[in-house]
Amino acid sequence: MSDMTSTADAPRSPGRPRSTRADEAIIEATLDLLAEGSTIEALSIEAIAARAGVGKATIYRRWSGKDTLLMDALRRLKGILPQPAGHSVRDDLILLVGAIGRNVDPRAEKIMPCLVPEVNRSPDHYRLYQNIIAPRRQLMREVLARGVAEGVLRPDLDVEVTMALLTGPMLIQRVLQWNPELNEHTLPEQVVDTVLAGIQAR
Amino acid sequence: MSDMTSTADAPRSPGRPRSTRADEAIIEATLDLLAEGSTIEALSIEAIAARAGVGKATIYRRWSGKDTLLMDALRRLKGILPQPAGHSVRDDLILLVGAIGRNVDPRAEKIMPCLVPEVNRSPDHYRLYQNIIAPRRQLMREVLARGVAEGVLRPDLDVEVTMALLTGPMLIQRVLQWNPELNEHTLPEQVVDTVLAGIQAR
Repeated sequence: MSDMTSTADAPRSPGRPRSTRADEAIIEATLDLLAEGSTIEALSIEAIAARAGVGKATIYRRWSGKDTLLMDALRRLKGILPQPAGHSVRDDLILLVGAIGRNVDPRAEKIMPCLVPEVNRSPDHYRLYQNIIAPRRQLMREVLARGVAEGVLRPDLDVEVTMALLTGPMLIQRVLQWNPELNEHTLPEQVVDTVLAGIQAR
Repeated sequence: MSDMTSTADAPRSPGRPRSTRADEAIIEATLDLLAEGSTIEALSIEAIAARAGVGKATIYRRWSGKDTLLMDALRRLKGILPQPAGHSVRDDLILLVGAIGRNVDPRAEKIMPCLVPEVNRSPDHYRLYQNIIAPRRQLMREVLARGVAEGVLRPDLDVEVTMALLTGPMLIQRVLQWNPELNEHTLPEQVVDTVLAGIQAR
């Protein structure tokens, strides 16, 4: 979605193009409405337009409808992708685990916990949302595949199960404050080292 | 809370005592209101009484207020504790991991994802909610401690981190349908075996 450009070709003032300013206002209005407790169902192009101070036509010039706009807004919450250095598999995994559930926008804390279950109830929304998290998941998959290729990780590794093991603890601790005994700051390193070594006595 | 009894001592009809029937209706009304989207903040003794078809005094005879009633209702969603057999550490862990995020009540799917973040915003609610999950967490802690004592698990095991590793994957898969590539039915065994063995090449 983010490579779509406005079809408006009106003359533009210097500095930031007008369409980009409107896009920003529309994304912000969408996130504000969600953070104030709007469900996806209740969210409407009318309400977003009113909140952003733009006409509905301005939204439809840029987005095909509510769903694509919603997904662009959710993608915005996540910020830019982390960049593994590519040297040590352990260090790269700690970096990626540390980025899990870390949203760049404080509204995420209000929006995400209730929204994800609502997203999941619609197969279309679920697929769109999976597209948002797919690049992050792919980064971790590549680090694990590299570890196997380099002989650092077991050749019979189940990559998807391992990703769930690396992701789950951080996500429940960041989103749900699952266990007050855990330290969110040391957790990425503890998770990676425990998954690497295993807990079985040798 | 569950060992509190009604202070009403009116004569009772045979069969189920009247107070128990009223208690059931009150708990059910609380869960219904939450499943329909009521926030904890919006939930009121008035609304619960009206929905349950009882007077407010009936609720106050049994619960000190909204918070204790809420916690009894949430405890109800979880059902009874799983019972590890106590022979194999691996089998006990698979049983406990399989019970994570499994609610006995279909309303839980609507209630829990949005409620837990709201619970966490109030230190009092957070503490009350931790009391609900503490017995489940303690069961897993005991199995891990037994594994260390029996020499099956590493003596330097970090029990809290290991519990997060065992719990996180199931919770994100059950509550968020995190990754369509994972199989919820085989996941408990896969999680336990991967955490036991570790992913490092040997």
